[in-house]
Formats: sequence, C-alpha cells, structure tokens
Amino acid sequence: MNMHAKPKLRDGVVTLAHGGGGKAMRDLIDDVFTSVFQPASMEDQARLTSTALTEPGAQLAFTTDSFVVDPVEFPGGDIGKIAVCGTVNDLAVGGAKPLWLSAAFIIEEGCDVALLRRIVASMATEADKAGVRIVTGDTKVVGRGSADKVFVTTSGVGVIPAGRNLAADQVRPGDVAIVNGVLGDHGAAILAARGDMALSSDIESDCAGLGHLMEAVIDAAPNVRAARDATRGGVASALNEIAQTAKCGIVIDEDSLPLRPEVKGVCEILGLDPLYLANEGTLVLFVPPHEADAAVAAMRSTPEGRNAQIIGTAVSDHPGTVTMRTRFGGGRIVDMLVGEQLPRIC
Amino acid sequence: MNMHAKPKLRDGVVTLAHGGGGKAMRDLIDDVFTSVFQPASMEDQARLTSTALTEPGAQLAFTTDSFVVDPVEFPGGDIGKIAVCGTVNDLAVGGAKPLWLSAAFIIEEGCDVALLRRIVASMATEADKAGVRIVTGDTKVVGRGSADKVFVTTSGVGVIPAGRNLAADQVRPGDVAIVNGVLGDHGAAILAARGDMALSSDIESDCAGLGHLMEAVIDAAPNVRAARDATRGGVASALNEIAQTAKCGIVIDEDSLPLRPEVKGVCEILGLDPLYLANEGTLVLFVPPHEADAAVAAMRSTPEGRNAQIIGTAVSDHPGTVTMRTRFGGGRIVDMLVGEQLPRIC
Repeated sequence: MNMHAKPKLRDGVVTLAHGGGGKAMRDLIDDVFTSVFQPASMEDQARLTSTALTEPGAQLAFTTDSFVVDPVEFPGGDIGKIAVCGTVNDLAVGGAKPLWLSAAFIIEEGCDVALLRRIVASMATEADKAGVRIVTGDTKVVGRGSADKVFVTTSGVGVIPAGRNLAADQVRPGDVAIVNGVLGDHGAAILAARGDMALSSDIESDCAGLGHLMEAVIDAAPNVRAARDATRGGVASALNEIAQTAKCGIVIDEDSLPLRPEVKGVCEILGLDPLYLANEGTLVLFVPPHEADAAVAAMRSTPEGRNAQIIGTAVSDHPGTVTMRTRFGGGRIVDMLVGEQLPRIC
Repeated sequence: MNMHAKPKLRDGVVTLAHGGGGKAMRDLIDDVFTSVFQPASMEDQARLTSTALTEPGAQLAFTTDSFVVDPVEFPGGDIGKIAVCGTVNDLAVGGAKPLWLSAAFIIEEGCDVALLRRIVASMATEADKAGVRIVTGDTKVVGRGSADKVFVTTSGVGVIPAGRNLAADQVRPGDVAIVNGVLGDHGAAILAARGDMALSSDIESDCAGLGHLMEAVIDAAPNVRAARDATRGGVASALNEIAQTAKCGIVIDEDSLPLRPEVKGVCEILGLDPLYLANEGTLVLFVPPHEADAAVAAMRSTPEGRNAQIIGTAVSDHPGTVTMRTRFGGGRIVDMLVGEQLPRIC
C-alpha cells in the first residue's frame, strides 16, 4: 500500500504458484497491483460512496469488457490502456460520468513481471486522466498455452445525472452524425504491429478515454441523442446498430470521412474497408441539426476531438439501413460486418 | 430479447468470426446470452436505480473475479455457477446485499456452443437464487490454444446498509470463529474431476451463493465482526488474512473442523491439508462471544449452513498467527500457504 515500498518480487516471470491463493499470490498482488492502484482497503470488495449517485433521478451505469488484444503492447498503447479507456468510453457514450473501475487479470504462466508492471502503470495513468479510480481487482494464473500472456477484464461504474437519456432509440430523421476523429487507426496499428503483413507504418492506435470529450459535448449540445464508441466492427457497425434500433436510415458521405492517408494506404493494399476497422478512441454521435455546430466545436476544443467531423444524417427513408454517397456520386449500402476483419483487435 | 425466440445459431462450435464485432457476434450474443439474461437495454452500459443505494449512510460495494476453473464442468457445478456464486459471496461477506452482476466471457475458438448454453443457464439459475440480475456483459473469442475453452469474469455491485462495517480489523480477542459447513469439498471435487489422480469419489463441490445466509446471520448476530469466503488457499488462508489484519492471534480446534470422511480420505492419500483446500460455498466469520450461538443457529436455519460449527477463537497472544490445537493435545502453527496446492481451482 506504500508506493515507495521496496519491490519484494524479483522481476522474473509469473509462475502457477502466483495464482494459488497463498503467500506468493499475495506478494505478486501487493507488489505489482495494489502498490500502484492503492485500493482503499484489503476487504474482498471496495466500499464506495458518491453524492452524485444519491441525487434524485440519477442512474447508476454499469459495464464490462474483456480485453485480449494481440500483441499486448502496440504503437499508441497496450492492453492496460485499452482496458481502462474502453470501459471509460462505454460509460461515457451513455452519458455517464465514470467513477470506479475494477480490473481482473488472467495471466499465463511465464508472463514477464516487467510486462505486468508496464500494463499496470499504463492503467494507472489512463485512470488518472479519466478521473476514475481502480478500486478492486483479481489475479488468476493459468498454465502455459492456456492463455496468451495476459487478458484483462475491466468493469466500470458511473453515474448518469438526472434528465440524461442518450440512447440509440432517441435518434430521429434529420439528426446529424458526427465523429470525433480519424477512422481506423487502432485496427491499422494492430495490423502493422503484428508484423505478419510485412507492413511498416507509423500509425498509432487512437486509444484514448473520451469521458471529458463527452462531457464537453453534452454541455454544448444538451440534446445529443446517442453516442457509440466505434470499436470492434468500426464505424459501420456502430451506425448499423443505431439505424436498426432507431428504425431510421442513415446516409453518410464518403468525402466527409476523416481518414489518415497511411490508414487509407494500408486498407488499399490489404483490401480492407476503413469503415469496419476498429477504433479505441473514436465515437459517433447524433445531435439535432441545430446543435451540430456546437457539438463539433465542443469536440474540437478537446485533444481527442481535434479532427471532429460531420459525416452524415439520419433519414426517414430505408429504416434500419446505412448507405454511403460515394465520391463519384453513386450510393452503396454499408452493411453490418458479417464475420470479422481481424481477430483479437481489443 | 425474447426467451422463446427460435434459436438462430446452429449448435456447433464458436469460431473467430463470433468475436469480430459483426453479425456473427451479434447472433451469438442474442441467441446464447441475452435470450437468457434478458438485459434491460442494448446500450453499452446497464442503467440502474436502487432506492437502497440512496439511503443515508448506505455504501456501494463493488467486486470482481475472473474464473478459470479446470474442468469447466465438475460435480456440483460449473464455471458459470462458480462465477455467479463467487461474486455474490465476495459482496455478501462484506455485509453487502448483492444487486447486479456483469459477466464477461473469453471463449476459445472451437468451444461447443452447447457448453456455453449450459454455463449461461447455470449462471441464470444461480443469479435467480441469489436475487441478483446479470445486467451487462461482453464476449471475446481467441484462437485455439490461446485460452482453455472458456474463462468467465464476473463483477458485482451491491449495497451495504448504513451502520454495517464487517471488516477483518474489527475482530478482537475473545471473538468466536464459525464456519458454515464442511471444508475442502470444492478442492477435492475438482481434484477428483480432473481424473489424473486416479481418484474416484462422490464428492461434490460446495459451490453456493451465501447472500441469504449472511443476511440471516447479520439479523441474528448484529455485531458480527468480519467474514471471509474461504476460496483459494482455503480456511487457513482466510484465517491468516484476518489474524494479520486484526493483529490478533487465532486458535482453532482440530476436533471441531467439519470434514467429510471422503475429503479426509482424499487428503490422506494425497498428503493434502483440508485447511488449505478451496471452498466455493464456505465462509468463516467472527462474532462476539455472546452472539455465537445465535449466529450458528441462524446459519443452520439456511440450506448452506446446515453444518455450521464453531471452530475457534481470536486471542491476544501471538498476534498475526493462526494455531491449531490438534486432537492429540498438541499445537501447530497454521501458516499461510506459500505456493499453491492446485492450479485453476476457481
């Protein structure tokens, strides 16, 4: 519990003994996890209070995600950063202010303790940035070949203030679709990092927490209807989910899609569609038309929204379907991804 | 979202496409998970309210655990049952009433869909029994050999009513230690189920939710000091943690330890100590002496506490150390487990 305590654990590798519930496990947890996260107590559960949660009309938001990204470290982030940002973002896109996170680790025997330390440090940094606390956790160890280095599962609890109702079914024809930044950076960065495509690139994952950006947008555009972070399945899947739930059509403009030339290049070489590439710091949101400019300006005032862009509108035609006006004046249906483009992207 | 919807998914095996964020994943989630758990909405986060949480002085309890038990199905339970009970118990031993759970699945490519269905059904059954709702979840798929069938991570949110403070540092000399049932059944059942010990036995895991039992005990013995579920590391580790945190000694009586003859037999054959064998429905709690009988009676009034038994007392001697009076009149130190007895016990 003392950040300056002398490390007790030799920086070797994790063994099965570290998962057994005894002294070795306690040492690993104390040294690698609780010395950084500093939970309030050593009880089995965190005990928490928040006055925001007791305000009349406030709702508690609760979400979870497992992360299995391969490789666990990549340009722009690592599995710890993605785990914290992903859970913060799942809360934020629903209008919740993230409060507390849990973190559970499944570690493969032989995993470097130094790697765990880097992951934990990166989680602490992102939690700090997002203004959340990692308050409880768990560690399990499995034999070699029964996991791949380390998997991280984060859950998050946040508070939705009274009166907010961001939900896909609130989107109606005429609403404007906005993204906060360039598309596909995370997917392209992971692809390049795997090395098996013989691609070399400087693309970094967009992995970032979007809690502050969402608060800025909601302040500036109080009638924002819905938001989705465009992770697995990319912007195309997020838009399809919204179109189906809202029972409206969505039309996007190919020319308006913010894309990095490097990502465009990777997609052209490999025959991938950037609309389906995963993002880890990119969301799409819908606002009524009169609030669109304010929402874009609010996004651009934050570091994560510098490249914010209107990409389309909700329409009453073809409910449940997303279409794209191409730069040659044609139109094509942007369907939901059927299988997968890249396994273990997050 | 309709429990009677026709299954859309052929009962084959999970493929990487089921983890890709597209249509295949949506079908798997709809068909196997949400059709049973029936979350309130399809947003990325569950939105919840509880009047108990807004009571003055109430605290929110938050906990998480990953489960990697091998085999995933065993006499008396499966990884789904253990995941729900384990998280319910982590909340309950702190005096929290469990409210909501999240469930995140890491699935190995090739995992039988029928196995997933059985796990999910068993989670739904246990959640029902415990009076909690599984309100949000996640699914990831990894390639063959990158996980072992399926890992489940559950997080739980509960409410600790005003005035309750069950914590290890509340235990003081004179307090009585009580267990709710026989020791080591889970560890022995897993050992036998693995088959590699050439053991055959009828031992079933004690896997059970202890929320109702804890409420009965707190009603009957309102000054209960602390409770711990004796999972990995067994009763010995739970007692050591309490002794160290409370800075008192603990003395237990070998003769008073409730043990099934079959478990005793397995331990004798394999040279294991039942005090270190894992339990999944057994807790140890401390009450002031004048409430000990009421606490035992309250436990015995519940199905999970039929074999409740006083096993020892907290003492001012040898703070931080657990000792056992053996049946031959001697004494020995019950140390914390150093490594592990059995990997992947939970």
